[in-house]
Amino acid sequence: MKKMIAGLLALGMGLANAADPVAGKTKAATACAVCHGPMGMAMQPGVPNLAGQQEMYLIEQLKLYRNGKRHNEVMGVIAKPLTDQEIDNLALWYSSLNVTVSEK
Amino acid sequence: MKKMIAGLLALGMGLANAADPVAGKTKAATACAVCHGPMGMAMQPGVPNLAGQQEMYLIEQLKLYRNGKRHNEVMGVIAKPLTDQEIDNLALWYSSLNVTVSEK
Repeated sequence: MKKMIAGLLALGMGLANAADPVAGKTKAATACAVCHGPMGMAMQPGVPNLAGQQEMYLIEQLKLYRNGKRHNEVMGVIAKPLTDQEIDNLALWYSSLNVTVSEK
Repeated sequence: MKKMIAGLLALGMGLANAADPVAGKTKAATACAVCHGPMGMAMQPGVPNLAGQQEMYLIEQLKLYRNGKRHNEVMGVIAKPLTDQEIDNLALWYSSLNVTVSEK
């Protein structure tokens, strides 16, 4: 019984922490799209494309902006209130976008 | 005559400083491709894609790595010896790549 409860708890925690790309897409539309575009392609010259970026890279950079170790005036403000869950969701959404590259 | 000399000097400086995407591609193949891929698509989870990134963004970030304001163990070493010209060349090469994005 103890094992079952522990198992259910672990499952519950696992579910609570699982990144949700749909929630990421919704959050991105309000928090990120003005600069990074609706599909993660930058709308301004000094802004990076996020579409198809590595999930781990996006999580790391958002946390660096949140804790102030990476500096950018806008991103400092945007990243500060983000929860770990929101960061995971955003990273999964952007990394899930399919990118193909070719030489012009 | 003075105006002509000044004009020629300005032209010469302009030409000397013009970014060269072919030189950028050559430099990228030796300095960047191991981690960022031969076409600027990351080969490792914590590494960003560079293909199709904004030229200005790439220049800014390489200079931040070079002067130590953006921290990354590998990029600190890689960016330190880069000249402004090499940074301009790399940024033009990566930004010149054509990227198309779609939802999976």
